[in-house]
Amino acid sequence: MIIGGSASQKLAAKIAKELKTTLIPIETRKFPDGERYIRIKGQLEDKAIVVQSTGYPQDENLIELFLILKNLKSMGIKKIKVVIPYFGYGRQERRFKSGEAVSATIISQLLEFAGADKVFCVNLHENNITDFFKIPAYDLSAMPPIADYIQKTLENPVIIAPDKGALGFAKEIAEILNCGYDYLEKTRISPEVVETKPKSLDIKGKEAVIIDDIISTGGTIVNAVKILKEHGASKVLVSCVHPVLVEDALLKIFAAGVDDVVATDTLQSEVSVISVASIIAEALKKD
Amino acid sequence: MIIGGSASQKLAAKIAKELKTTLIPIETRKFPDGERYIRIKGQLEDKAIVVQSTGYPQDENLIELFLILKNLKSMGIKKIKVVIPYFGYGRQERRFKSGEAVSATIISQLLEFAGADKVFCVNLHENNITDFFKIPAYDLSAMPPIADYIQKTLENPVIIAPDKGALGFAKEIAEILNCGYDYLEKTRISPEVVETKPKSLDIKGKEAVIIDDIISTGGTIVNAVKILKEHGASKVLVSCVHPVLVEDALLKIFAAGVDDVVATDTLQSEVSVISVASIIAEALKKD
Repeated sequence: MIIGGSASQKLAAKIAKELKTTLIPIETRKFPDGERYIRIKGQLEDKAIVVQSTGYPQDENLIELFLILKNLKSMGIKKIKVVIPYFGYGRQERRFKSGEAVSATIISQLLEFAGADKVFCVNLHENNITDFFKIPAYDLSAMPPIADYIQKTLENPVIIAPDKGALGFAKEIAEILNCGYDYLEKTRISPEVVETKPKSLDIKGKEAVIIDDIISTGGTIVNAVKILKEHGASKVLVSCVHPVLVEDALLKIFAAGVDDVVATDTLQSEVSVISVASIIAEALKKD
Repeated sequence: MIIGGSASQKLAAKIAKELKTTLIPIETRKFPDGERYIRIKGQLEDKAIVVQSTGYPQDENLIELFLILKNLKSMGIKKIKVVIPYFGYGRQERRFKSGEAVSATIISQLLEFAGADKVFCVNLHENNITDFFKIPAYDLSAMPPIADYIQKTLENPVIIAPDKGALGFAKEIAEILNCGYDYLEKTRISPEVVETKPKSLDIKGKEAVIIDDIISTGGTIVNAVKILKEHGASKVLVSCVHPVLVEDALLKIFAAGVDDVVATDTLQSEVSVISVASIIAEALKKD
């Protein structure tokens, strides 16, 4: 029994199909004053899976999720698995300055209080977030479906992380595809000049695939695209898990001369052509 | 020690002034992707008062409030009084149809979990909401400051409730001002025709003041204004506690020929000329 929130309608349907289970009808709309109305219409069992990403508008998606969870619990549902393909507020996971709210911890606690019994996320931006939950929390990797897409699309790819922090993603994909990978390294040439280039790989004539977990404003990616083209890549594809894509991020990336931008459907976007439904369904089946 | 959320900045400052206490600096802003950032900057004591209305955008204001409360608790604050001048999600306080989320209960539970030790609201739309809290919850009346405003503005007012549900407000104000009051009664004349008119009062030549708790789309008020003018009121003033004012509500009311529209500052609006700071300060002092 699967319930989709308004931020993950299509993905919830895909997961239901993969699991050969029912997608429960839910009415979710706003009153004229902006308040959310939730009604769960289907016949309920004692277990449920709720799918809801908490990307923009984060706070609306979160309140909707809290309303769904608390409502299910008040209707007697005993076990709720919550799938949060994109976990919003995942970047503030510690107190950098005194007095700061550690949003990731607070949101985790609220989700647990609202009724989540298990949580499934995809590529959490910070690894320690699963520890904020007392309930079991899983951090799934979207690299296998992204690798699968690259394999179907390119002949001879190399996988490039735009910075060292994303190297793990490049490595994971490269190992699936048995191809080369690298990251763009920053070197300070003089007090004023920083040079950024592939650490060791010669990418001249190669089909370069940039991979990152999140594309937000797109600044890092635009820079990476330019460098790879300067170094003679024959093609540049940009891929990511979570297309957050603030304002004109996508336009800026295309304007930098990229051949294509692809992302998964953890967030609904114009470039969400790769589905994480299969990896989520698999994790739910195993559990 | 008072902390204002972004929805009640001016009101928080006014309450702090009335109580001769410190308004604590807080940084509250959004990241480019829409996520809220909270930092409490002042020197903290072990008790705090947090002021935050949860009108539109309700979900953003609620998440901000949860972040502030949880953050204060994690910083060691022992007792938090939460002032919610306008309590959003206060209209769904029971399950009218099967499967509906009872939002008012759920929001109350979340507030309590987030760290509220006492709650102060102004004119809750439904009386039973205070019962949803296990912690002490107070429902203050804004009728005294509204009565005070009317007294200063009009010579010879009569107070009119637009329907029977609002009669209690009209009575409360009329008793303070020692003037007449009434409500607009609906009578079905034929299967197709419903007549609405003042139940007993002759308002010809009188200064009529319409009072309601919430003005939302304004439909009820527009109708009331027209009826009072048809019955010969010399002046029509519209007053309410919470100016929710969806879209062009205010324009529609002015277009109906009203002389003025006034409301309190439980919600920030163009017509928030009456302050509830004094009644809130008084309740906080007494407590």
